[in-house]
Amino acid sequence: MAHIKLHNEELPGIVGLLNYRPETGKALTDLAEVLLRGPSTLSSGEREIIAASVSFWNGCHFCHTSHAAAAAAHLKTGISLIDDIKAGLPNTLVSDKLRALLHIAHQVQRNGKNVTGEDIKWARDLGATDLEIHDTVLIAAAFCMYNRYVDGLGTWAPGPKEAYTEMGERMAHVGYGKF
Amino acid sequence: MAHIKLHNEELPGIVGLLNYRPETGKALTDLAEVLLRGPSTLSSGEREIIAASVSFWNGCHFCHTSHAAAAAAHLKTGISLIDDIKAGLPNTLVSDKLRALLHIAHQVQRNGKNVTGEDIKWARDLGATDLEIHDTVLIAAAFCMYNRYVDGLGTWAPGPKEAYTEMGERMAHVGYGKF
Repeated sequence: MAHIKLHNEELPGIVGLLNYRPETGKALTDLAEVLLRGPSTLSSGEREIIAASVSFWNGCHFCHTSHAAAAAAHLKTGISLIDDIKAGLPNTLVSDKLRALLHIAHQVQRNGKNVTGEDIKWARDLGATDLEIHDTVLIAAAFCMYNRYVDGLGTWAPGPKEAYTEMGERMAHVGYGKF
Repeated sequence: MAHIKLHNEELPGIVGLLNYRPETGKALTDLAEVLLRGPSTLSSGEREIIAASVSFWNGCHFCHTSHAAAAAAHLKTGISLIDDIKAGLPNTLVSDKLRALLHIAHQVQRNGKNVTGEDIKWARDLGATDLEIHDTVLIAAAFCMYNRYVDGLGTWAPGPKEAYTEMGERMAHVGYGKF
């Protein structure tokens, strides 16, 4: 049960929080929509992998599993991708550029100051543009917010990954403005 | 110098980033505006103290100093408040409720899962409402984002606290929609 009375106890994770406080919910969903589904040279599947990875590193089960399911919906991999993201993507074919961007995201997850000039150079040498580096840092930073919001208020989350398939499809193909 | 080419090198901290990518900048400033200056039973001065404290714990000089200056502008304390926030407010008269909310914010800054039922009960026993607890958690979470965004991209920041007085006045009295 959440730490505060939300009056919408059937809604899991961040969904109940967005519903509880629509004034902040609007800005939070606008940010997710532009970051994960707006125009970008990174595909939405790649951006959802970054979001899901950061959420896994922060230990946020709801955000990790739902965004990994969204990545699976974009990339049509099936939900085995959820566990593969946990393991660092040993079984998924992703570009070296994305692996370098995931390393930057991991540095940001620990603390923004951890990002070094070498981290940036590695990504740039593998073809990352300044805008892709910018968006990677902001996606990683934003999920350090969403994860803390969801867990800090003690929201509930479905356990098994199979419970997230439909949610992932909706996040991928309907978007974040419709919750 | 920032890790990426912003083409607006005179703008410090997050200001250059909001200017570089207005699509995400809009959602980020909308969120700051509603969280820090929107209708609330916590004063804007109290909310800026929470924002500045979290930023200090994350080691983000730009966000800490500018939001502490905004708190000083709201509360008309003078900029000695900036150093007092670093020290945990030994010399500033704040309510016990705010001290309990700052403790929750500190737990969130470390990880959302750190917040316990006792932390919530302590704040509630001192008069905090559910909405105040919600907003405290979200302010703390949001500054874990803003801080990582500002530091993760290696932006520059003025050093001395005196350089933030005018910025703090503008943040407090003009707001976050005008950057």
